[in-house]
Formats: sequence, C-alpha cells, structure tokens
Amino acid sequence: MQLILASASPARLATLTNAGINPIVRVSNVDEETIEANMGSSTPSEIAQALAQAKCEKVTQELADSNELTPNTIVIGCDSVFELNGKPYGKPENAAQAKSRWQEMMNATGILHTGHYITFTNEHGEQNTAEATASTQVHLGELTEDEMDAYVKSGEPLAVAGGFTLDGLGGAFVQGVTGDPSNVVGISLPTVRKLLTELGITWTNLWNQAR
Amino acid sequence: MQLILASASPARLATLTNAGINPIVRVSNVDEETIEANMGSSTPSEIAQALAQAKCEKVTQELADSNELTPNTIVIGCDSVFELNGKPYGKPENAAQAKSRWQEMMNATGILHTGHYITFTNEHGEQNTAEATASTQVHLGELTEDEMDAYVKSGEPLAVAGGFTLDGLGGAFVQGVTGDPSNVVGISLPTVRKLLTELGITWTNLWNQAR
Repeated sequence: MQLILASASPARLATLTNAGINPIVRVSNVDEETIEANMGSSTPSEIAQALAQAKCEKVTQELADSNELTPNTIVIGCDSVFELNGKPYGKPENAAQAKSRWQEMMNATGILHTGHYITFTNEHGEQNTAEATASTQVHLGELTEDEMDAYVKSGEPLAVAGGFTLDGLGGAFVQGVTGDPSNVVGISLPTVRKLLTELGITWTNLWNQAR
Repeated sequence: MQLILASASPARLATLTNAGINPIVRVSNVDEETIEANMGSSTPSEIAQALAQAKCEKVTQELADSNELTPNTIVIGCDSVFELNGKPYGKPENAAQAKSRWQEMMNATGILHTGHYITFTNEHGEQNTAEATASTQVHLGELTEDEMDAYVKSGEPLAVAGGFTLDGLGGAFVQGVTGDPSNVVGISLPTVRKLLTELGITWTNLWNQAR
C-alpha cells in the first residue's frame, strides 16, 4: 500500500505519524486563492472541502502522469478554514491583523472546518473516492494584552489559518473544543479512518508500514 | 525561573514542550496505590487531585531537603484518572482486560480527570500553592473486532490510564472530546496557565527560557 499526503503542513504530517501512519508527502501547489476567489458565496466548510478535493485531484493526476499511480495507492488531500461569526479566516496578513483578530476571537467560539478528500487506486487499477468535511468548535480563552503581544511576536499566528494553533504555543490559549481535536490541527484521524473503511481499507493495517 | 515537572509521563512533557515550555523532570515515586487504597469512597476526580498534590509535595520536599528549592521555583504535579459509568479506570492489567474495556467503552462517553497542583517558591523564598482539577468528556468511536485486536496487540492501551490515548495510536479511535484536549493527554495547558497567573506568573514569560 502506498500512502500519499497531498499537503505541505508539518502539523498534518505529525498528526498522522503520531497515530502510527507514515505517509509520503507530495505538495500540490494548487492555486488556492483563485479557487477561493471563484467561490464567492460559498460557506467556509464548502471552501475547505473544495480545496481539499483540488489538492488531492492535482496530486493524483500528477502521479498518474508520471506513472507512479501504482495499484493500492491512497492519496489524501485536506484543507482547513476557520470560521468566526460566519466568516472564513485564513492566515493573518501581518502582526497588527493577528492582534486585532485575537481581540475579536478571545472569549468567543469559532469553528475549524477541515475538508478531506481521498482517492484510492485499488489492486485492479480502478479509482474510487471518498470525502467528508469535519467541523470542530473551538472555544478561545481570554488573553491579557501582554500575552497577546507575546503570542503575536512569536510569529506563530501568522503561519496558520485563524491565527492560532492547538498543537503549538497557542494550545494554552484554547479553553477547549467540542469535536475532534485532530481536526483542529488539520486532519481528522477518525474521519480519515472512516473514509478509508468506506474504501475497503482497514486503518490498523496501515500501522508500521514501511514507506 | 526554575520549572519542575513532577511526572514521569513523556506525554505530559511533550505537551509542555510543544507549547513552548521546557521543564526539568523530577519523578516523585509516590506510592500511588496506597494513597488510592486509603481513599475508599472518593470520586475519580478527587483521586486525581489527591495524587497530583502528593506528587508535587513530595518533589517540592525533596528539593527543599537537598537545598535545590531556590527562589523562583515552580513545581507542577499532575495525575489523570479515567471515569466510565462512575468508576475510576487506571491502566489495564493485561491484554484481555484491555480488550474487554474497549468493548465497554466503544460508542460511549467517559470523563478524563486530571488533577493539577503547583507550588511556587517566590523570590523571597515564600511558598504559595494553586490547584485545580480539569475534566474533559471523551467520546469513544466504534471499533471492529480486527481494529480492537490490533490496538491491544500494539501494547499502547496497557501503558495508559483508561486504555486509550488521544495523542498516539488511539487518536483515530476517539470520535471527539468536549473540553480541553491537552487535559486528556495528561496536563491541561489552559489550566496550568490560569494557576500560574493566580500565583503571579505570566505564562508567556516562560517561553524560550533556557533550563
């Protein structure tokens, strides 16, 4: 079995690795901004799902073009969008925006949507797909002015959708979640397990597989 | 500032490290079984809190005895107990018990309680304490017989309270949580941040501190 993660996110890779799964990373270089710009009235969860599908399909096509789409190949694409007050939030553009976002987010609840899209090329070379969006409520804590300034200064908020992490420095500022925490990090483990089961693949058979 | 973690748990240490905090580990070797045996009618959360306090106080005393309890020393003790149907669950005793627990737990909701107890010896050598128990609901997924057997065979369930992890192989079997996920791993980051604030210590000042 060949397992490909179509994402450059180190947090997604670490989430899979910690759960016993060692994928090969293939970055899709999909033009996310253009796709998003063409989805004018879509919801944040629809945007996440469309981008996950675009990443997965692009990497699957590239593998096919280079004759690497061998039988028993799984390709997983993911994309995450943070929703606050009904609006989608990507990475903050600069430190000032990161701080003003936190002033809006603190003591509030947002929703982290992650789209998941999987292609599976089976032993006969036939391709099947499975997809699901998972959504987790994130309850942000209260930060003092000093804590907010220190967090923005760390640079972390500028690198991530929504301007916070659960698995990094931001973890101490998240009061709690309602839903799957791995989904907040960027790839929902129970969701991927369910999608693979739909495709006839047993999750635990992927453990300890050499690449 | 000297920060001591009174716990042997690699998961607690990793949780703090990922959040920017680098403690020194000092294992307490408290006799947990005797303490628990003497708490006959106590609730699972009371047991977790009592064990956290015992670990923290023992390490604090040992530091004092060896003249290492210098001004500005923080000692953090934690203990986790999993509650299912009102009963406390520690580590399963063997593979058969790990499997029968999973048969009971799957599709069910349990509560992971972590007790936190902190001593802070301030710049004048005065000692103050702060404590809190955090409780997170854990919603376990449905496992096939094959998945359950593979998980038990991995050995992971035998090493952890409740017979599952959120941050390891078990992550794919946890459908979601209600509350703080770091608390399920064994140390609640927002809770420790709050307790330190009560003791006059700013969390973000502990980032990037050399040991």
